[in-house]
Amino acid sequence: MKATGPQDELEEIPQDECLEILGRHSLGRVAIVVDGQPLIFPVNYAMGGRVITFRTGSGTKLSHAPGSKVCFEIDGYDSLAGAGWSVMVQGVAVDATDSFDDVSWAARAAAPWALAPGAKPFRVAIDPSEITGRRFRRRA
Amino acid sequence: MKATGPQDELEEIPQDECLEILGRHSLGRVAIVVDGQPLIFPVNYAMGGRVITFRTGSGTKLSHAPGSKVCFEIDGYDSLAGAGWSVMVQGVAVDATDSFDDVSWAARAAAPWALAPGAKPFRVAIDPSEITGRRFRRRA
Repeated sequence: MKATGPQDELEEIPQDECLEILGRHSLGRVAIVVDGQPLIFPVNYAMGGRVITFRTGSGTKLSHAPGSKVCFEIDGYDSLAGAGWSVMVQGVAVDATDSFDDVSWAARAAAPWALAPGAKPFRVAIDPSEITGRRFRRRA
Repeated sequence: MKATGPQDELEEIPQDECLEILGRHSLGRVAIVVDGQPLIFPVNYAMGGRVITFRTGSGTKLSHAPGSKVCFEIDGYDSLAGAGWSVMVQGVAVDATDSFDDVSWAARAAAPWALAPGAKPFRVAIDPSEITGRRFRRRA
């Protein structure tokens, strides 16, 4: 087992680059809190400017996310390069299905495609309050 | 854009198979709640029986996870096969660094290897209260 040494780097990803990375991906995870219990769901998302949006059916995400603090995350690890990264977005979720606020408009300008089967007539948006990221690369 | 039709399947993964899948992977995400705000962190984990365990430093995860409800999740998507899956574990986190309870013993029998740099002298365990999974395959 190789020890982690000072040659390894852990660095913060600037917010602009976090947004760029978010724009290049389409599969992430949203965490919502139901009665004090956090739950994590994978979602296919798209970006409408800084707003993250995904489609959903009439389930837990639609019942508990809107109006509440949620977290959205994407990450990746390249085992050949020994490089890992993650981007985390904190914010409040909005039911953007047919609302007329700015966040909902931004959300509806994007077109996330849900890969998982099942009717998903509703649209959830996350208005980011904080966008952070970090990455590392292990050196040989 | 292809509509989701009745030919697509979304099925639950039995708990035994969820545990088997958890045992075959080593990178997941843990969600913890800090002042009502869920946060998602990628972690390298290992299984000690049904107990999930990962190493950490003296940061947010160690300060807020132990004694609290947390969520752990892994997922995957094979774009060629059009198949996706996810496994979610709900439970209470324990600081298993040097405690003598059963969960901590089970955790310390496993050897997670943290890929991200930085000292991680502490050990967190998740005692699962609920293990669920689902998968789908899109048909042509």
